[in-house]
Amino acid sequence: MTGQSQTADKPTIALAIGDPAGIGVELTARLIADPEIRAAANLIVVGDRRVLAQGHRQAGLAPDFDIATTPAPDPRPVLLDLGHLDPAAIKPGAAQPEGGAFALRNYQVALELARDGKADAVCFTPFNKAAMRMARPSYDDEIGFTCEILGLPANHPAREFNILEGLWNARITSHVPLSAVAGLITQDAVLGGLRLTDRALREAGLAAPRIAVAGLNPHAGDGGCFGHEDDGIIAPAIVAGKREGIDATGPFPPDIVFVRATKGEFDAVLTMYHDQGQIAMKLLGFERGVTFMGGFPFPICTPAHGSAYDIVGKGIANPGAARAAVLLAARMANQRKARRAAA
Amino acid sequence: MTGQSQTADKPTIALAIGDPAGIGVELTARLIADPEIRAAANLIVVGDRRVLAQGHRQAGLAPDFDIATTPAPDPRPVLLDLGHLDPAAIKPGAAQPEGGAFALRNYQVALELARDGKADAVCFTPFNKAAMRMARPSYDDEIGFTCEILGLPANHPAREFNILEGLWNARITSHVPLSAVAGLITQDAVLGGLRLTDRALREAGLAAPRIAVAGLNPHAGDGGCFGHEDDGIIAPAIVAGKREGIDATGPFPPDIVFVRATKGEFDAVLTMYHDQGQIAMKLLGFERGVTFMGGFPFPICTPAHGSAYDIVGKGIANPGAARAAVLLAARMANQRKARRAAA
Repeated sequence: MTGQSQTADKPTIALAIGDPAGIGVELTARLIADPEIRAAANLIVVGDRRVLAQGHRQAGLAPDFDIATTPAPDPRPVLLDLGHLDPAAIKPGAAQPEGGAFALRNYQVALELARDGKADAVCFTPFNKAAMRMARPSYDDEIGFTCEILGLPANHPAREFNILEGLWNARITSHVPLSAVAGLITQDAVLGGLRLTDRALREAGLAAPRIAVAGLNPHAGDGGCFGHEDDGIIAPAIVAGKREGIDATGPFPPDIVFVRATKGEFDAVLTMYHDQGQIAMKLLGFERGVTFMGGFPFPICTPAHGSAYDIVGKGIANPGAARAAVLLAARMANQRKARRAAA
Repeated sequence: MTGQSQTADKPTIALAIGDPAGIGVELTARLIADPEIRAAANLIVVGDRRVLAQGHRQAGLAPDFDIATTPAPDPRPVLLDLGHLDPAAIKPGAAQPEGGAFALRNYQVALELARDGKADAVCFTPFNKAAMRMARPSYDDEIGFTCEILGLPANHPAREFNILEGLWNARITSHVPLSAVAGLITQDAVLGGLRLTDRALREAGLAAPRIAVAGLNPHAGDGGCFGHEDDGIIAPAIVAGKREGIDATGPFPPDIVFVRATKGEFDAVLTMYHDQGQIAMKLLGFERGVTFMGGFPFPICTPAHGSAYDIVGKGIANPGAARAAVLLAARMANQRKARRAAA
């Protein structure tokens, strides 16, 4: 419990164990043991001691953490043991309501810790959406659930960011039919997206993030030949963003903007709809990346990959994306602290 | 003019010189000199002898072809000299109406040669769309122009295919506003796209092409949560295609289908709209690929890249994609000949 210094200077991260039938348990054990993670943050793992013990067995690691039933940041990682799941009740590699309920409860407690000032950021290992919906049929996505737990209105301007090797992607619309996309592209929506993106990248430590905005239509409308939104809605929103000091450019042809981004021309691409960004990010290897939820009072990060039921229990889960998620959350929490201290 | 055999067995390809201010002139000279191209096809180059001479100078190659004013396939490449452009009138690296008019005329004559049975396929080096429109304000795209020259109705079911290293991509809708896409996705349109794709790949030599169909909506609709088209329109069209013997699968989530295709699972991806395929293909390096126009009485191929005004005249134009275009056209022309001979 001693021998580590600057505990108070490190951010505290509430790390919720995700779906217990997937690789999230093994990843949690690997994160707890990771010297770089330990140096970057005080971890409060939220879950069940029996489940985490299974994770240590899967990872082939000796447990090295303290157990608590109430959170108390500690130089060593702390497990907040909710005592709510015997892993014997879980079939590995299958979506089941008990697994969904476990992950949801852990995530809720982690959010409450951060809400109550007992943690500076929240991370979670992969959820399984099918299991979440078995446990809670109304479950839509993490953003909706987070708004609910934090008492924020459903239209709270939160947004998911996908981050891969320094390239950020956020989108104006997400899980809506393609036929509804064009009607949702408004100047307010694009400007709001620019503001959130600019703020998120500044919190991640970029002094002047370069944001490329994708057009909506083929060739960004080709001078109005294929749709009016690029010239009539997106371009004016970019002008408005620039007036606020945001380094925004575009609208770019959607099939060109990621090619240019991969050459290092931009720090972020703001896309208009789900697949415009996801087609590119997944081809670029986004399963190695991080998802950040922006627009909340504290950073929330998770690895981009899923619960990987096909390799659960084999001890071969790659912790790279989960490590990147925790390290990004720590960096962003530090930036927020510094900004508050300066204010 | 002698010393080469099997002239009659090789397909004859009418090769139109594209925009004279771009790299197409240099590429034409390189194609004429290429032993593999000479072995695969009898070339009838359509253009002007003075322009082609400039191409040879740019490429640092000695001219080695015959000049004709009427087409007569020959063991050596033949230039059909239209005598219609003095290259001194052209400013290199700039879109100009004279350049557009030159490329349009060459392409028209090449199409007419194939239409009249004097060539088995058509190829062209890169056009510049801005120059085409200066020369002919009503110019929309190659497919529309080709239909017009061949006397086909505007709604003739032709389609552009993009081909990169064995992966083909065709799309149901193309240069339309994104807001119009969903309304154009019909069972007939998807089934027609499947038929054209299956036929094109068979003509390229694949015995049983594996065609993946992308969904329209995020996650291919996620069971109807985000749009009805995937389950209600695309899936039944795939079933209808299978009934005709087409090896079609899907609809796949749009952000997954190209990841799977790059692993070799499919020979072609049929996408629903322009950027769904183009975002992926351009990230994969499609400027090295080939564009094929399917649905016409003869194959029409061109390199996927543009006229590259930035490197014109430097002698560094990479002929890889142009070579691939001519070789694909030759292969497809041979398949058509063989099929006709067998019928």
